[in-house]
Amino acid sequence: MGIDSEQAAVDDEAFLADFAALSAIGATESGGVERQAATDADRATKVWLGDWLRQRGFEVRVDAIGNLFGLLEWTPGAPYILMGSHLDSQPCAGRFDGAYGVLAAAHAAVRLRDRIAGSPEPPPFNVAVVNWFNEEGSRFQPSMMGSGVFTGKLDLAEALSTPDSDGVSVQQALEEIGFAGTGQMPEIAGYAEIHVEQGRELEAEGVTIGLVESNWAAHKYRVVVRGEQAHTGSTAMEERRDALLGAARLVVAARELIDHAPPRRLHTSVGQLTVTPNSPVVVAREVKLHLDLRSPDQEVLEEADRRLRAEFARIEREAQVEIEVAKAHFWEIEPYQPAGVSMAEAIAGELGLSRRRMLTLAGHDSTNMKDIVPTVMLFVPSAQGIAHNEFEYTSDADLLAGVTMLTEVASRMCRGDLKN
Amino acid sequence: MGIDSEQAAVDDEAFLADFAALSAIGATESGGVERQAATDADRATKVWLGDWLRQRGFEVRVDAIGNLFGLLEWTPGAPYILMGSHLDSQPCAGRFDGAYGVLAAAHAAVRLRDRIAGSPEPPPFNVAVVNWFNEEGSRFQPSMMGSGVFTGKLDLAEALSTPDSDGVSVQQALEEIGFAGTGQMPEIAGYAEIHVEQGRELEAEGVTIGLVESNWAAHKYRVVVRGEQAHTGSTAMEERRDALLGAARLVVAARELIDHAPPRRLHTSVGQLTVTPNSPVVVAREVKLHLDLRSPDQEVLEEADRRLRAEFARIEREAQVEIEVAKAHFWEIEPYQPAGVSMAEAIAGELGLSRRRMLTLAGHDSTNMKDIVPTVMLFVPSAQGIAHNEFEYTSDADLLAGVTMLTEVASRMCRGDLKN
Repeated sequence: MGIDSEQAAVDDEAFLADFAALSAIGATESGGVERQAATDADRATKVWLGDWLRQRGFEVRVDAIGNLFGLLEWTPGAPYILMGSHLDSQPCAGRFDGAYGVLAAAHAAVRLRDRIAGSPEPPPFNVAVVNWFNEEGSRFQPSMMGSGVFTGKLDLAEALSTPDSDGVSVQQALEEIGFAGTGQMPEIAGYAEIHVEQGRELEAEGVTIGLVESNWAAHKYRVVVRGEQAHTGSTAMEERRDALLGAARLVVAARELIDHAPPRRLHTSVGQLTVTPNSPVVVAREVKLHLDLRSPDQEVLEEADRRLRAEFARIEREAQVEIEVAKAHFWEIEPYQPAGVSMAEAIAGELGLSRRRMLTLAGHDSTNMKDIVPTVMLFVPSAQGIAHNEFEYTSDADLLAGVTMLTEVASRMCRGDLKN
Repeated sequence: MGIDSEQAAVDDEAFLADFAALSAIGATESGGVERQAATDADRATKVWLGDWLRQRGFEVRVDAIGNLFGLLEWTPGAPYILMGSHLDSQPCAGRFDGAYGVLAAAHAAVRLRDRIAGSPEPPPFNVAVVNWFNEEGSRFQPSMMGSGVFTGKLDLAEALSTPDSDGVSVQQALEEIGFAGTGQMPEIAGYAEIHVEQGRELEAEGVTIGLVESNWAAHKYRVVVRGEQAHTGSTAMEERRDALLGAARLVVAARELIDHAPPRRLHTSVGQLTVTPNSPVVVAREVKLHLDLRSPDQEVLEEADRRLRAEFARIEREAQVEIEVAKAHFWEIEPYQPAGVSMAEAIAGELGLSRRRMLTLAGHDSTNMKDIVPTVMLFVPSAQGIAHNEFEYTSDADLLAGVTMLTEVASRMCRGDLKN
């Protein structure tokens, strides 16, 4: 083994050891994690990452929305190539989603610095690592909150005043965990992120690196169904205005939208549904739910939206309820910069890593970032496509290949290969 | 105005004043109450009633399941004619449901004692008032818990270990509010209860007193729908095992059972539904719900049960979920003793109160009591049939007529007119 491959083996071992340490924070019995935004477990990951970065010479900054940055500067005053993802998780979730990307970014940054230390002149851009606040959006909506504020798509004051289901605001929650920061957001010139695929395309084709060309478009609706509270036993059926019946019809209608779309071109779901007053013998007066439509085809999505609105009207009549769309959050299909995809494709080739171009079905912070700077989004395989589940899994070999890939992408971006 | 009618006016005023005082406990802004079992508001009603009874010479006892009895003894050692209902409420409920029956019982008992004080010899039975614990079953299931334990239909230890949704047991909750009693349950010879109808039959026909002949039969199921946690965005639709979709299909299927039943002979509902993990971007892995079927016709109910079980199998296949009936609680149609109905009918006639025979769609503690002692169940009208709702309403005139009616029923029962 030569000096380089010995060093590579040491680096890989260090990455896996750090990933195991990070995975122990908020660990669940079945090998997953539970680290919802601004909870104790989320705080513990921020403390862990901040310490890790400081120990390796990064300048650590926390901004007002709780994003944690680690900066390495070799060219004073130059903008940064930012890499990262998120350490928060869904309830009872996998240990790879987001956390892998943050740790891969941190290791890639350190490897890059070590590489630059031996070169005659530093590259024109510095490098930074980020742990975005509340990417998941399970406790506070919308998701991708930290990158939303960073990119100016989401107003800081509005984000800070967002309540969780117990009425605790983001501001209060960040103060409670000691991560309502005052640090300045760094000026950046590019962004790179690596994430587990959360689908089974890479695994099915035996490919290691996914090169994300574009996101799926999404329509996300927060819906309130209103009925009238009554006795489940004594109230005549025809007099009931049952909000839960209306909501149930809506869940079914959302699922049946896929029957009118081309195969695999539309995903629909309701993942959160809350009933008031939720007593066994009371007809519900109100149900709140989150309904998503996603498609790689804007026309398919708009047709689904039209059908959904027609379903609202039908259900209002049939279940004697009122349906209100309280909030809607739309993402369009927007490509990542083609030059970044091509660059990453060439790098994978040089590294001997199998690769394919693909779309992302899930939203990622890079979905926000690509609209303000050149952005590269990479995937590594997810076993059986399992996601948002404790049994999410990616092999060590794929994790390590991804860190190698991300390091090289960051190296080229710092060198200025992907300018605006 | 003669002495009797002057006294009657004073008694009526006292009843309405007490009802207003009782309604202030746990009052909601819209004129309802929220006093779920063994909460602070429920405790406050128990303290209020205990004080009221003691001040009027009742012996107050609280038993192990938190039932509160007030006893008046004029024939030492004789069994009691018990009257009462419940002071607990649904969330955000009306002020009449249960509370009216308890206060009517207390006032009827006092009126009866005053009447007996002037008679040459006391009647053979004593009289007692009861506030049953947890009739509503919103916080702890099953409903009618206090009378269930009293009648031996529900095991005391099992009832005490029942957890609420936060894992607090009935035992702990009763200890916390200071109503885990050690008092002996009184020996009884009969039971009478008055309640608001919670339907609109009496109002529609302009009738004051409902004479309950029988209950509707009910099948109550606690259902668990199991799927698999996944990402709402990235997981392919055909791979989803969405517990919320399965539950929604079940809510709709339960409603559609009425299309196969004779008109107005079947009531179906799901009032409580809880999703895990209930995040906007996670396909639910588990949904728990309570499903009720009720009918005045056992055959209709059994046909609905068969259809429902077939629906379970269909939904399991179609939504790729598993459906488990974790608990089921059945009530059959059982008549109240016909002699009690006839006696009450005659009394209403003597008092000049309009009356009709009818069924009860809702369950009541009397549904339990009628199986162990002669029981009379009376209704007064509910405006528009509104029930389990803050806008539940019964007029003062109807409330007062009901107290007069109940007093006379108790008088005859104490005298031994309705023996086993």
